[in-house]
Amino acid sequence: MEQRIIDSIEKIVGKEGYSTKPADLYTYGFDASIFHNSPEIVIQPRTTEQVSEIMKIANRERIPVVPRGAGTGLCGSAVPIKGGIVMAMQRMNKVKKISVADLWVDVEPGINYNDLNDALAPHGFFFPPAPGSAEACQLGGMVALNASGMRAVKYGATRDYVLGLTYVKADGEIVRAGTRTIKDSSGYQLARLMCGSEGTLGIITEITLKLTTKPKKSAYCLCTFNSIHDAGNCIAKLIAKPMIPASCELMDSISIKAVNKARGNPVPDCEALCIFEADGETDEVVNRDLKIIEEIATEAGAVTITPSHDQKQIDAWTDARKSIMAALSALKPGYSSVSLADDMGVPISNVPEAVKSFQEIADKYRVTIATYGHAGDGNLHTKILINPTDADEWDRAVKATDEIFDVCIDLGGTVTGEHGVGIAKAPKYMRERASELSSIIAIKKAMDPNNILNPGKLEQWEGSILTGLRYPCEEYM
Amino acid sequence: MEQRIIDSIEKIVGKEGYSTKPADLYTYGFDASIFHNSPEIVIQPRTTEQVSEIMKIANRERIPVVPRGAGTGLCGSAVPIKGGIVMAMQRMNKVKKISVADLWVDVEPGINYNDLNDALAPHGFFFPPAPGSAEACQLGGMVALNASGMRAVKYGATRDYVLGLTYVKADGEIVRAGTRTIKDSSGYQLARLMCGSEGTLGIITEITLKLTTKPKKSAYCLCTFNSIHDAGNCIAKLIAKPMIPASCELMDSISIKAVNKARGNPVPDCEALCIFEADGETDEVVNRDLKIIEEIATEAGAVTITPSHDQKQIDAWTDARKSIMAALSALKPGYSSVSLADDMGVPISNVPEAVKSFQEIADKYRVTIATYGHAGDGNLHTKILINPTDADEWDRAVKATDEIFDVCIDLGGTVTGEHGVGIAKAPKYMRERASELSSIIAIKKAMDPNNILNPGKLEQWEGSILTGLRYPCEEYM
Repeated sequence: MEQRIIDSIEKIVGKEGYSTKPADLYTYGFDASIFHNSPEIVIQPRTTEQVSEIMKIANRERIPVVPRGAGTGLCGSAVPIKGGIVMAMQRMNKVKKISVADLWVDVEPGINYNDLNDALAPHGFFFPPAPGSAEACQLGGMVALNASGMRAVKYGATRDYVLGLTYVKADGEIVRAGTRTIKDSSGYQLARLMCGSEGTLGIITEITLKLTTKPKKSAYCLCTFNSIHDAGNCIAKLIAKPMIPASCELMDSISIKAVNKARGNPVPDCEALCIFEADGETDEVVNRDLKIIEEIATEAGAVTITPSHDQKQIDAWTDARKSIMAALSALKPGYSSVSLADDMGVPISNVPEAVKSFQEIADKYRVTIATYGHAGDGNLHTKILINPTDADEWDRAVKATDEIFDVCIDLGGTVTGEHGVGIAKAPKYMRERASELSSIIAIKKAMDPNNILNPGKLEQWEGSILTGLRYPCEEYM
Repeated sequence: MEQRIIDSIEKIVGKEGYSTKPADLYTYGFDASIFHNSPEIVIQPRTTEQVSEIMKIANRERIPVVPRGAGTGLCGSAVPIKGGIVMAMQRMNKVKKISVADLWVDVEPGINYNDLNDALAPHGFFFPPAPGSAEACQLGGMVALNASGMRAVKYGATRDYVLGLTYVKADGEIVRAGTRTIKDSSGYQLARLMCGSEGTLGIITEITLKLTTKPKKSAYCLCTFNSIHDAGNCIAKLIAKPMIPASCELMDSISIKAVNKARGNPVPDCEALCIFEADGETDEVVNRDLKIIEEIATEAGAVTITPSHDQKQIDAWTDARKSIMAALSALKPGYSSVSLADDMGVPISNVPEAVKSFQEIADKYRVTIATYGHAGDGNLHTKILINPTDADEWDRAVKATDEIFDVCIDLGGTVTGEHGVGIAKAPKYMRERASELSSIIAIKKAMDPNNILNPGKLEQWEGSILTGLRYPCEEYM
């Protein structure tokens, strides 16, 4: 990057507000995906106005800008694949105002999910989506990816809570979109359009979220099954009852094995299990829902059914579930779990069919695929175990991924339920959203005519999903 | 309209599918707002493909197209102010599929709100927004205006339920946007962008809504107050508790007087009242919430507090609330209630301040203003009583409206919480959304380059809000 541009940036954010050190550039070239590319500069703005001034320079000089939260994304959305600027938002991390009587909270994009909930708890409210990366992820990233997690089946995704936000356009104009009222019906829902736009339409610098009351009681029930098909069936029956659990997590035998090996058997050794959560305002409501879960699980052929109100037991189960991704990488020496087909969503009734297909695909390509996830809303995670320095393993893994995505699309699903598109899902996103593409391209062009905001991602991606790998696997780099 | 164009349209929809009869054109020149303008043709398509073929003609010939639901809108969104085509969707009125286990329903845009809920009820689900026009309004209109109603405080607005939809672009391309999965995180949320776009971005021809379970129990509580300020205060305290009621309706003394006169005293004669609804899975939960309502109402100085589980009593109260708009027009001989400032939203804690300001404005301009509405989410209705053939009354009413909108914007609110912008709110919408305008204009241009979709509304409006009045009041037409 030319020194005169760096000088202009320094005038805006000060010496402390940016870095061009190789170690920093290398670090900020990653998110939690399989991709890497170093930016030319990392900027850590403190205010919306600083972001605006930087965008004016970037737009004039045609420099790519990639906004970045905590870097916990799994599909490369925050990897600066075209170089340029990484706009790292972690210094804008304040809760600006909790307006309890008005049911909203204003936050900066760098605030962490758990920190926000800690701030809301004393008032009786919470922000429910509960991503797996709750301890690290930032709200700006959650909005940019329309993230969610365990509680989305009952409480919805991030998009359902965004009342308004401030974003900086490609040309530096500051836009306050949406409202600080619970409802608004005026014109275009720009705040919702920004949800899931992955930094391609603007840089989010403030977010107004709707508050919701936290249920006072909750309990869990762990059910084991003889097959993942039975487990998937049980979930579909429960939803159709209808009974919408607060969360509903599925684990297959590989996930169970990995977690039990890594963490000292926190869950029963079995072919498949579901962990259901019931919540509500009173014990009576929770117990009634637990009873429905037990009845449906029995009908669906559950082998064991273990309800629990014991927080220690519940923590062991939920920690086990959360540790799957890390545990998988420790299952087989020399093998890592890689995020390729990592968060597909299918109609809930198609969960059994989907998991069956995943296993057939794993067999066909001789790869180990673990399946787990928030199956209550049809959101399935698969992680493929490969030796990431072996080109042939990548080749088989990518072919398997390709088929997994196609199965999900053909079952009426989506290639991404909660992690976003980024690079990893770009080619299949274009298949899934073929009929939307002309609208998507038109909106992108209208909002970012010089194509500087996170360019080359989503519908602009032209490589294979092995372009820009972080691993030392020459054949694919 | 040239005969050759009419002939092409007839080829697409048949003789039964359109009309150019003067009586039909006159009728389809109205919605429920104060505006009127006749179209040149009314078309009633039966399929998405027919809509697509018509749009191709309209785009080629540069003919304005205004989609229309039941015509229950209150701000002129469906009035064809530039003539052209009214695309009336009432023949596309089917529930296409209820996918119980997948938590979605596919409907055509012409389906009525109550009919949809009748179809969902046997499965234990409902679509909660509950607009005042529930008996007549259509889902396409609800999506186009992001409509809501009594239950939005707890259950959200239409936008919160739209998983996907099919729309026809200005150029006739058919787009399937969003998914039929409970979650998706992919790319731009085009389905949500269509919510509230008032027919300016595309013609909605199919809607996929998320299903939600209907609570099994509910009860009501009517509280009377010595002033509307006290009533507003009670609501703000309740929300801050936090306790989010299923609905929370406010009525001022004028609304109460009008309803009691028109319908034989269904509610107590008082200065102000609130009707609260508590719902939940069990009687215990409902009764606990009722108790909280009673406690807070007592603290807030309620004069009487009347909880009720009696459906006959509850129906009398809710019917009274729903009949306000009609009852107001019968309050004063020769006077009608007109929809000018009809659905503002303010932060809930500002409800008392807002209603106080409305009364001051009414006094200043010597007009009668009734205030009521879904105050639990800060959504307030005002209706101004005027002789609609008197130019001076219009003049004072419009000045009052202008100040009411400014007060709401200045209190951090919005000019429209649930009815939309259309014509009536267009000038103030441009004030409220000033910082969004460049994005709005860019998106509109990208999606409809020839400006044929409901042109001249929202940010394109150039007249006063008395341009195109339906009333015989020459001075303003």
